[in-house]
Amino acid sequence: MERSAIRKNFVVMCTAVFTLSSVVAFAAEEKIPDALESDPIKLGWMIGFPPPEDRIIRFDDGSYFKFPQMRWSVSNFRQLMPTVNVSRGVSVPSELKQKIDGNINQLMFLPTNSKQPMTWEASLLANFTDGIIVLHKGNIVYERYFGVLGAEGQHAAMSVTKTFIGTLAAMMVADGLLDANKKIAEYIPELAKSAFGNASLRQVMDMTTGIRFREDYADPTAEVWAHAAAGNPLTKPKDYKGPRSYYDFLQTVQAEGSHGDGFHYRTANTDVLGWVLARVSGRSVAQLLSERIWKKLGAEQDAYMSVDSTGTPFAGGGLNTGLRDLARFGEMIRNNGMYNGQKIISQTVIDDIRQGANKKDFAKAGYKHLTGWSYRNMWWVTHNKNGAFMARGVHGQALYIDPAAGMVIARFASHPIASNSANDPTSLPAYYALGEYLLGLDKLKK
Amino acid sequence: MERSAIRKNFVVMCTAVFTLSSVVAFAAEEKIPDALESDPIKLGWMIGFPPPEDRIIRFDDGSYFKFPQMRWSVSNFRQLMPTVNVSRGVSVPSELKQKIDGNINQLMFLPTNSKQPMTWEASLLANFTDGIIVLHKGNIVYERYFGVLGAEGQHAAMSVTKTFIGTLAAMMVADGLLDANKKIAEYIPELAKSAFGNASLRQVMDMTTGIRFREDYADPTAEVWAHAAAGNPLTKPKDYKGPRSYYDFLQTVQAEGSHGDGFHYRTANTDVLGWVLARVSGRSVAQLLSERIWKKLGAEQDAYMSVDSTGTPFAGGGLNTGLRDLARFGEMIRNNGMYNGQKIISQTVIDDIRQGANKKDFAKAGYKHLTGWSYRNMWWVTHNKNGAFMARGVHGQALYIDPAAGMVIARFASHPIASNSANDPTSLPAYYALGEYLLGLDKLKK
Repeated sequence: MERSAIRKNFVVMCTAVFTLSSVVAFAAEEKIPDALESDPIKLGWMIGFPPPEDRIIRFDDGSYFKFPQMRWSVSNFRQLMPTVNVSRGVSVPSELKQKIDGNINQLMFLPTNSKQPMTWEASLLANFTDGIIVLHKGNIVYERYFGVLGAEGQHAAMSVTKTFIGTLAAMMVADGLLDANKKIAEYIPELAKSAFGNASLRQVMDMTTGIRFREDYADPTAEVWAHAAAGNPLTKPKDYKGPRSYYDFLQTVQAEGSHGDGFHYRTANTDVLGWVLARVSGRSVAQLLSERIWKKLGAEQDAYMSVDSTGTPFAGGGLNTGLRDLARFGEMIRNNGMYNGQKIISQTVIDDIRQGANKKDFAKAGYKHLTGWSYRNMWWVTHNKNGAFMARGVHGQALYIDPAAGMVIARFASHPIASNSANDPTSLPAYYALGEYLLGLDKLKK
Repeated sequence: MERSAIRKNFVVMCTAVFTLSSVVAFAAEEKIPDALESDPIKLGWMIGFPPPEDRIIRFDDGSYFKFPQMRWSVSNFRQLMPTVNVSRGVSVPSELKQKIDGNINQLMFLPTNSKQPMTWEASLLANFTDGIIVLHKGNIVYERYFGVLGAEGQHAAMSVTKTFIGTLAAMMVADGLLDANKKIAEYIPELAKSAFGNASLRQVMDMTTGIRFREDYADPTAEVWAHAAAGNPLTKPKDYKGPRSYYDFLQTVQAEGSHGDGFHYRTANTDVLGWVLARVSGRSVAQLLSERIWKKLGAEQDAYMSVDSTGTPFAGGGLNTGLRDLARFGEMIRNNGMYNGQKIISQTVIDDIRQGANKKDFAKAGYKHLTGWSYRNMWWVTHNKNGAFMARGVHGQALYIDPAAGMVIARFASHPIASNSANDPTSLPAYYALGEYLLGLDKLKK
């Protein structure tokens, strides 16, 4: 496909991948509205019957993922595109007790590379937080919502989706349903000729594959655009000749470097992993997520995933959940797989996540705020003294588990800058400081 | 817009109205597959990762609403198009006790204009039933699912949607929030120049407006196509010049005949009613339905509605619900608005629905299977000896309430023929016979 054709169809084609950086819309010198200025209720997006024409957010013109419109969209993706349900079943939701700690708002921490301390509460606005909840030993000690998100409602989890897929894969490996040493082509013969064919399942699960998948948004030939165009559920332009689904796209991925030669964060790995899970289990990843996790957690809301035009859920980033349910998932992991009166995930899987992967492999990726971390089963492992580990999605989605402090933080956000390097400086130190504060409370009680 | 252009864009434009008759795909001499032959699991629609190319059901090519594909689609609309949630909240579902009556399958009844008796069970296949549940005095005495529908999962309610909107309107009239005698233009000034402008709210609620809204699918100039094209959430074709949303379309509706001059079943009335409810309440009909009905019922699943490209839910037919939740709604109505420990709808509203409207007005519409019926607040009132009344949607969707027998029947179906005149002969006598059977049981117990 020639460049001009891609550019021409840019808007229509390229609106389905949530990992795209909306910040490209802002030139360096332009002032980005802050959290209060960009509040979606204040701006009146989609308010009124009908809303004023310039307050309508649409999918097909790409406006839905521009900033500040995206502050509305990330809580309303299902109104913009087809989705598949992740059912909670029909049982009684598991209980989350509240023990709100009024001191947390004023907790001070030092943002990375800053000499100016910041309060926990100020960090929420700095990070364009849409919702945040903190559990301490399973009780809600803090919970806040902003803009159009509430306790009821689902927010895009972005690449936090990957962590669910990686966890499901680890569960199926532990169950003997998958062999981490097998090559991808053994599970998905259609991928034999792609770069994934001779990668091991473990390399895909830990994203150490050597694949060409550039996420350079300024380059219309970058693979990320072809991935987005393939997965877009809208009608393809007439002159479109590229792959027409996520599965079709994955078969076109070429090699770059060698498998096993370091950590390279590439969304396509998770889509391959989702394909393997579906092929082996006979269930879509949405069904698997429902059956093996969502129903067992006693989630209080259904979750959902976006789908391509052939019905395939976007394993790399299409999940949307309620904030409390994301926290329940984190609490189950913190509690070694036990939650809602049952063992949901085996100790083997939990241990495998917590021990992380090779730090040297990770270091090659050059994340300046994540020194000493590793990536295992699609979890980000800090290897800090508290043994904390995370799920992370662009624009500030986070699930942070601090085992030593008995703390789980789930956060949804709509930061104007996609890369988490923009919010890490005021997020990671805040999370750490809150863990230390809660550890201190525990010591006082002893 | 000229005819050729309309025809050209037929497929892309005209896929969003669920009331369209899919039977146009079958010539008179063609054999329509029966319920077993058209079972969506047997046919393998959307099974596999990916499904075989000829088993993929898509929205944009219109295949999703052809028969037999629609047997899958009606249980999976959200995977095909954007939707808005109708939240159940996060509370505990209300209890539905089971007292299954094994005799019901063999209950005999005489189909309309037939001399050959049929069993209840045989009627389910004859009507392409996807799910059916019978409550007797609030207990489940019968429950069956077919194809891809189960107790978990939401099915298109089609025009049963209208009954929810009409009920909400009647509730707001009873609350004094709406005045049934007011003209539509007083609520929606944008409709002043349309045929709706000088219709009263009551005329809209009872569909006695005189509007030009032909549902002749063979005629590309019929208003039903313009309505579908306006509401279609997909990108409009480049040469498209028609209305671009449901609200835009309603403003183009012209007069035909006089308001108050008989019952004329026209979907556009419900879309106008939905607009009035939203404008007056400041809430979309999806929000209203959630707050005033779904949450209070203790529904066990969220429901959802399809939306147009401006986020307006399709009030005339876009609701999708779980079968048990539809039955809960019916049971609440049967129980005079009391359910789940609270009064959800006032007696005034229930009485107003049950008493129906003018039978002579109704008779003018010429429904041959519905002699002596009337239409009130978007409910179909039989005026039979048991005082039964119904919600009805094309392809066999039904909620049937028989107060004398203490019976509620909720049914979802995917009959190849849109018009309920195709399934009424084997549905209405079966419902009536089951009511008589249950009445007989009650008498035996006394």
